[in-house]
Amino acid sequence: MEGERQIEKGKYAADISSIKEAHDRIKPFILKTPVMSSTSLNALSGRHLYFKCECFQKGGAFKFRGACNAVFSLDDEDASKGVVTHSSGNHAAALALAAKLRGIPAYIVIPKNAPTCKVENVKRYGGQVVWSEASVQSREEIANKVWQETGAIFVHPYNDGRILSGQGTISLELLEQVPQIDTLVVPISGGGLISGIALAAKSINPAIRIFAIADGLRAFLGDFTWPVVRDLVEEVITVEDSEILKAMKLCFEILKVVVEPSGAIGLAAVLSDTFQKNLAWKDCKHIGIVVSGGNVDLGILWNSLNK
Amino acid sequence: MEGERQIEKGKYAADISSIKEAHDRIKPFILKTPVMSSTSLNALSGRHLYFKCECFQKGGAFKFRGACNAVFSLDDEDASKGVVTHSSGNHAAALALAAKLRGIPAYIVIPKNAPTCKVENVKRYGGQVVWSEASVQSREEIANKVWQETGAIFVHPYNDGRILSGQGTISLELLEQVPQIDTLVVPISGGGLISGIALAAKSINPAIRIFAIADGLRAFLGDFTWPVVRDLVEEVITVEDSEILKAMKLCFEILKVVVEPSGAIGLAAVLSDTFQKNLAWKDCKHIGIVVSGGNVDLGILWNSLNK
Repeated sequence: MEGERQIEKGKYAADISSIKEAHDRIKPFILKTPVMSSTSLNALSGRHLYFKCECFQKGGAFKFRGACNAVFSLDDEDASKGVVTHSSGNHAAALALAAKLRGIPAYIVIPKNAPTCKVENVKRYGGQVVWSEASVQSREEIANKVWQETGAIFVHPYNDGRILSGQGTISLELLEQVPQIDTLVVPISGGGLISGIALAAKSINPAIRIFAIADGLRAFLGDFTWPVVRDLVEEVITVEDSEILKAMKLCFEILKVVVEPSGAIGLAAVLSDTFQKNLAWKDCKHIGIVVSGGNVDLGILWNSLNK
Repeated sequence: MEGERQIEKGKYAADISSIKEAHDRIKPFILKTPVMSSTSLNALSGRHLYFKCECFQKGGAFKFRGACNAVFSLDDEDASKGVVTHSSGNHAAALALAAKLRGIPAYIVIPKNAPTCKVENVKRYGGQVVWSEASVQSREEIANKVWQETGAIFVHPYNDGRILSGQGTISLELLEQVPQIDTLVVPISGGGLISGIALAAKSINPAIRIFAIADGLRAFLGDFTWPVVRDLVEEVITVEDSEILKAMKLCFEILKVVVEPSGAIGLAAVLSDTFQKNLAWKDCKHIGIVVSGGNVDLGILWNSLNK
């Protein structure tokens, strides 16, 4: 088992001190999200599962923690120019909401093909939508243009120490809410969520085991998140779309919680053959599953479930 | 404003003492459900809304509280024969689960046209399904037959003091979780939920205002529940199906909580013109909304939302 050692200060883009500082900073604004359990899902998985419901977080996803930490870390002069990001999803809404709470502008570059409900979230929170093409290149160009015109501070969705520290506050809460947790199952995309969570959790309990869950397609780690994942994550488990959809249905029907696909991916992983049949993971008994978000378009969801 | 007087002991089928006793009895088995809030829904309604999420209750609805109290009130001899009820819904699953926890049989008479997900819930919790026709007469006949054959104790879905006392425990929790609540909005069907809630809430705070919410079609009060509703409820507000569907969508998209139609009816009422435009209700500022359950069939739901 890896990680049973102290994490050196300064080795990564965040550490337990910066995460505790982030928690103090954002506590007045974030929701301490509830942890849910279900005897039916425990029976189905053969483990004790603890769902940390970040779908109930403000903005509908964990992203608000990091965005809030980034926005409230700025000094007054920088903050007055506002913030800018390019994002197709939850980071966009989260940054808009955090900026609104600080009373500064948020310029959100959104690709034209983004789901309606996510664009509506940005607008609901007062973000100024700037459209781009779907390509990464177009998003970056437009964001750069906004920066040149306004001086707004760029806040990357994940490759940023302030973001890592904000997301890491999930571990502080969860390991206080359920101290017996021996395993964490966390979705991975850019790696901001799992890096923050791993850095905090391994500092609190070096024996805790951390699994990253990917849908096999969309993980692009940054240079701030890759080293953390490489050093602290036990394994990356990939799950099929069909498994994710089944897990989403269980979240709806048994937990009564609305989750987006990446929010259900942890449950999908724990129920998968890959996880269930691996003898080395038999002693993962108390598993914290991070339900990362709930911003799902009901129309798209229903069509997927009926496929 | 009515109810600003002490509730006489023995006047109704339950009182604050029987409700506190029920709470002590069922506390080891029930979930103390969380209270959720949303700044978006507060803005939409112009009030502070506190959603008491009984959709997360074991069995997926508040009904488990009353069923649990009824089952654990029985002496050992009566209990050994089991319990029987006729119900098209959540009371059925709730009674099955409570009986399972006590290790006694539950005979559940279910009409053939009941939604699949509700029948599955009964089976999941180990209830023995006995089919009847859809008519009330057929249900009662079959339940009577089960009683004659087994001696099982009949537990009515709402017209029973033990049930009222169990449902009343919601008020004990909610008014402790959010003491500033000045108004409660509660669905009414048979009246078991609102009677229990009103009896407890008015004892704790005689100035609290209680609104019953009906969909206009399905309220059939019993002789144990009608007197409570008559004396303690300020008004019965009826809402249209289209308003309920809209409120369900808000629960899904903003609260991220899966609710059944009767679970969303309270939000529908608070957002309705009837409520918003009534000057006498302008000072209902901190409103507790009881989200009664979350056992919705996703297929039926989606078809309704798309109508």
